[in-house]
Amino acid sequence: VNRETEVAKSVPGNLDHLRVVLVGTRNPLNIGAAARAMSNFGAPRLRVVRPYELAFREARSAVGAERLLTQAEEFHGVAEAVADCTLVVGTTAAGRRELRHRLRRLEAGSELIRKRLQAGPVALLFGSEKVGLSNTDLSHCDWLMRIPTRAEHGSMNLGQAVAVCLYELTRAGKAPREKREKALPKSEDLERITQLLFGLLRSSGYVKPRLAPAAEEKLRRMIRRLQLDASDAEVWLGMLRQIAWKLDDSDFIS
Amino acid sequence: VNRETEVAKSVPGNLDHLRVVLVGTRNPLNIGAAARAMSNFGAPRLRVVRPYELAFREARSAVGAERLLTQAEEFHGVAEAVADCTLVVGTTAAGRRELRHRLRRLEAGSELIRKRLQAGPVALLFGSEKVGLSNTDLSHCDWLMRIPTRAEHGSMNLGQAVAVCLYELTRAGKAPREKREKALPKSEDLERITQLLFGLLRSSGYVKPRLAPAAEEKLRRMIRRLQLDASDAEVWLGMLRQIAWKLDDSDFIS
Repeated sequence: VNRETEVAKSVPGNLDHLRVVLVGTRNPLNIGAAARAMSNFGAPRLRVVRPYELAFREARSAVGAERLLTQAEEFHGVAEAVADCTLVVGTTAAGRRELRHRLRRLEAGSELIRKRLQAGPVALLFGSEKVGLSNTDLSHCDWLMRIPTRAEHGSMNLGQAVAVCLYELTRAGKAPREKREKALPKSEDLERITQLLFGLLRSSGYVKPRLAPAAEEKLRRMIRRLQLDASDAEVWLGMLRQIAWKLDDSDFIS
Repeated sequence: VNRETEVAKSVPGNLDHLRVVLVGTRNPLNIGAAARAMSNFGAPRLRVVRPYELAFREARSAVGAERLLTQAEEFHGVAEAVADCTLVVGTTAAGRRELRHRLRRLEAGSELIRKRLQAGPVALLFGSEKVGLSNTDLSHCDWLMRIPTRAEHGSMNLGQAVAVCLYELTRAGKAPREKREKALPKSEDLERITQLLFGLLRSSGYVKPRLAPAAEEKLRRMIRRLQLDASDAEVWLGMLRQIAWKLDDSDFIS
């Protein structure tokens, strides 16, 4: 851990709080390439969700990043991989139309990410080579970011996309002004709010069982759009728990 | 040629005058990766000097850049490859000591290159994976440029280095201002949400009657902090109404 902290300190933008999250990556060489770029730019923490090849840690393309790859954390789902993060940003190709999320260009997005990295862990998600991030993956994101590529050929190679994002994040721009911001909730707290409210909506008949999966994703995105701070998130959890308790209780009595 | 010009025009920084020159590249996959990044960022002209594999045009990693690769020009030496250029810039890893050339960071160097691109062809050289550019190669360069990577691990993958350089070259100077496009809810809608939620909190026992006035104000401020847009406000109204209906209904039955 000590050594990693040193690594993180040696670049202009400290990326110790960044979690690069690769979701459903097919080619282990791309995981290796991502790891190498992370080592180049001083972002030590890699997380992988459901990689197609479990032997990814041996990726030959990870020149100089073997240690980083060995320490990569594996997860079964996006929710678990971003649970401790206070900001979750998904990457997407330029061509894709995403109407449900705010879409920021890499430059503008990076500025926000840099600020938030001073406060706590931030997850940056990259989808699979073929299809990118699924709608369910995206529902865990606060907003999306795109690299300004040509409309005619927007889709970048995964390792190159990671390299460009990390370059922009560490690029010596102006140092962000630190206004001390409010503490932010972890993703697991937002997920708890989502699940509590989802339960209420199901038992009240607002959500029909047939449409439940889509409704759950929609709800998760809505909760993230609220941009709650940590103390408000706690209040919302308390309120929803109480309403849920009352509703269950009433059901039981009736 | 016509089509290429269109390609070049569609990105902020016009890279039609840029020649990406890969010198002594060993792995054809890296040439393919470079070609893909060039296509992503609208730099249509690739030149290769003494590639180790002459079959590089079939590189599998050139997704979407097959045409660019087919039109790549081959040269026997750096001198020929940069003959028509008015500025020649070599790239080098951060760790390397180059005393004979002026060394610029990518950001500063790119600014100069962008200016010179308006006047005529500029060559950007990338050396081989193992040894980079030789002293002879470097002797053809006006100055050198480095990507600001960590001192401990400066050497980037070739395709990633090309991607990062082209990103910086096409990057728009200032991030465009974010426009506010969504409709905002009226205060009366926010007040309805507040009242509905307040009702739920009272009937569930979350709010004690004695503290109701203060709780109502606190709740109103919290709802305003959410900064809902008009369409989300409508969804919240619908959800809360349904939960309230269910709760009242249960109470009535019990």
